[in-house]
Amino acid sequence: MSDTARLETFSDGVFAIAATLLILDVRLSGGGSVAHQFVNAWPSYAAYAISFATLGIVWVNHHTVFTQIGRVDRTFLFINVLFLMVIAFSPFPTRVLAEHLREGSKAAAFAYGLTFTVMAVCYGALWFYAAVGRRLIAPEADQRTVSGISRSFAPGSVIYGTATLSSLISAWLAVGLYAAIALFYVLESSIFGRDEG
Amino acid sequence: MSDTARLETFSDGVFAIAATLLILDVRLSGGGSVAHQFVNAWPSYAAYAISFATLGIVWVNHHTVFTQIGRVDRTFLFINVLFLMVIAFSPFPTRVLAEHLREGSKAAAFAYGLTFTVMAVCYGALWFYAAVGRRLIAPEADQRTVSGISRSFAPGSVIYGTATLSSLISAWLAVGLYAAIALFYVLESSIFGRDEG
Amino acid sequence: MSDTARLETFSDGVFAIAATLLILDVRLSGGGSVAHQFVNAWPSYAAYAISFATLGIVWVNHHTVFTQIGRVDRTFLFINVLFLMVIAFSPFPTRVLAEHLREGSKAAAFAYGLTFTVMAVCYGALWFYAAVGRRLIAPEADQRTVSGISRSFAPGSVIYGTATLSSLISAWLAVGLYAAIALFYVLESSIFGRDEG
Amino acid sequence: MSDTARLETFSDGVFAIAATLLILDVRLSGGGSVAHQFVNAWPSYAAYAISFATLGIVWVNHHTVFTQIGRVDRTFLFINVLFLMVIAFSPFPTRVLAEHLREGSKAAAFAYGLTFTVMAVCYGALWFYAAVGRRLIAPEADQRTVSGISRSFAPGSVIYGTATLSSLISAWLAVGLYAAIALFYVLESSIFGRDEG
Repeated sequence: MSDTARLETFSDGVFAIAATLLILDVRLSGGGSVAHQFVNAWPSYAAYAISFATLGIVWVNHHTVFTQIGRVDRTFLFINVLFLMVIAFSPFPTRVLAEHLREGSKAAAFAYGLTFTVMAVCYGALWFYAAVGRRLIAPEADQRTVSGISRSFAPGSVIYGTATLSSLISAWLAVGLYAAIALFYVLESSIFGRDEG
Repeated sequence: MSDTARLETFSDGVFAIAATLLILDVRLSGGGSVAHQFVNAWPSYAAYAISFATLGIVWVNHHTVFTQIGRVDRTFLFINVLFLMVIAFSPFPTRVLAEHLREGSKAAAFAYGLTFTVMAVCYGALWFYAAVGRRLIAPEADQRTVSGISRSFAPGSVIYGTATLSSLISAWLAVGLYAAIALFYVLESSIFGRDEG
Repeated sequence: MSDTARLETFSDGVFAIAATLLILDVRLSGGGSVAHQFVNAWPSYAAYAISFATLGIVWVNHHTVFTQIGRVDRTFLFINVLFLMVIAFSPFPTRVLAEHLREGSKAAAFAYGLTFTVMAVCYGALWFYAAVGRRLIAPEADQRTVSGISRSFAPGSVIYGTATLSSLISAWLAVGLYAAIALFYVLESSIFGRDEG
Repeated sequence: MSDTARLETFSDGVFAIAATLLILDVRLSGGGSVAHQFVNAWPSYAAYAISFATLGIVWVNHHTVFTQIGRVDRTFLFINVLFLMVIAFSPFPTRVLAEHLREGSKAAAFAYGLTFTVMAVCYGALWFYAAVGRRLIAPEADQRTVSGISRSFAPGSVIYGTATLSSLISAWLAVGLYAAIALFYVLESSIFGRDEG
């Protein structure tokens, strides 16, 4: 098994586990009938859906990124471990957001956004470490594709950072922005990304 | 590692984790002796067995489906992420069903069935997106096999939807139907499916 | 990815997850100082170690078994799903045993043994379905190796069944036998198994 | 799939799951506002980060080690299962450390260090079993690389053992040392390890 193949297997494992663990924190909420408790649990569903979709998008892009990588070195491995540490951390702020969204907790919305901002920063670091000077890029990879990925990575941290700061104004605003970002990436990728599929 | 191989690895991960997490919600139930509590927990075993068997069947079919797929594009990846989101969601209604089956909760039976209906819809969407016009089908795949899979996919959503609606009459009826559907697919596949094994 | 390779990946996933989930049920136990609670939790460690070792042995043998398998069919897949259902179930009786071993609960010891007996039966069924008449055996597999595996599979269910029945006399006797069986398989495999490693 | 490839897949699974399960034990802590509870939970973050980084480092090295291994035998498989048993155990002392670090519990710090010392011992046993007399080393592996890995393995158990003993003086000292060891390995690997990347 090649270096990159094994790294992908491990990374896929962390993505899949972190995404699947999210469900452990979805619970019936409040009192009354079971039907009522199902409806009452909607902040759990919203937090689950946004986090799962975001991890899914990151995973799909990770997949695209790794097709450009020709080899790995230890620095790259360690940035990837750091990146995965943030990925694996994400169920925690998701759970807190689910528990405190109803009361409009700005702290919960801020912590959630901060986690995804740090994730975006680590992810960018991972890519630019590999891409600058084509350090780890496969010889056969097309430079236009590499440059295109670099351009698409650039705004991620800023967008998440801005949404995170908006939580200081309103938790609802911030969560709306997190959902919009996830939705935008899903649509953008599936509409414009077909050619490079 | 090819595109489809990596996608299978990730999907297998989510299937395996979701199925294995189901056990976390199986617990001793009621008071009295340990033996008594073991017996009392039977709704947990029933819900565990139906969900695990259903995920197992879906996984086995997923396996058959992917042998026909020659390449993936981003739209297919995202439908797959959505599909996996529902797969990973399934431990939640399973847990609620286990907790509320004894009291015959229609809401718990409905939510359980609704989850598997949405799963069937996503799964159908995944297949038909790939199969219509042989968009993503491998060139060497036999058209009769592809058409056979399409025919076998068609009734799934309707069957699960009908069983789900039956929960409005009786939770027990619905759960009986969910178990019967799982059993039917197990038997159908193992009796008639040998040739294409 | 070949049929058997993908099946191995999925099975490895369930083995790895079930084994790793065992730790979620290891908890500090009783009152007093932290050191005291660590010592008090010894039934958790014992149950964890026996279950993890048993799953590890089964996995190692599964590994040996699969090197003999040349192809899979749907019946084999479904027996494997049933087998994995029991594997994934094992954290539940392990948790109950850990909680009730101190009080010598025969029911907890019986349920634990019953689970591993059913596991042995499913595992035997999986192997003999593949091996009888070399139904799924790879053409290049040595018949002496196949027959050797068949001989080593024969006593498993009986040994576990006997140990399970011993729980009706004493929980401690049964747990001692479960530990002895695990230890025997570890030693037997590592001492006599080297040649076929 | 080759023997070593399948073993790597299983091992990667346990590493990924154990590392990802760590987050289940990170919880808001104490009373007051959500923001306050986030800050109060810092021992959870510290324990999570040290354990995740340590598992990450071990995984990266495991990756390097396996590139040297040409074949596996059953003894090697069983040492690996034992090693994985300790890896999968690590979320338990991590959770206890997170819960009792604030109060400076020496027992929690000792148990944490003991786990990682045993992990280092098992890991060393795994490597030296394979490396002595090049028992399982791939024929094409460079002996200087093999010897280099052997030299780097030698001090690990002693370093962790010493840090563990320091917990008898002060829990804070020990945790500081655990963090320093993790940081040292991260830096050492990424600074000096580039050539062999």
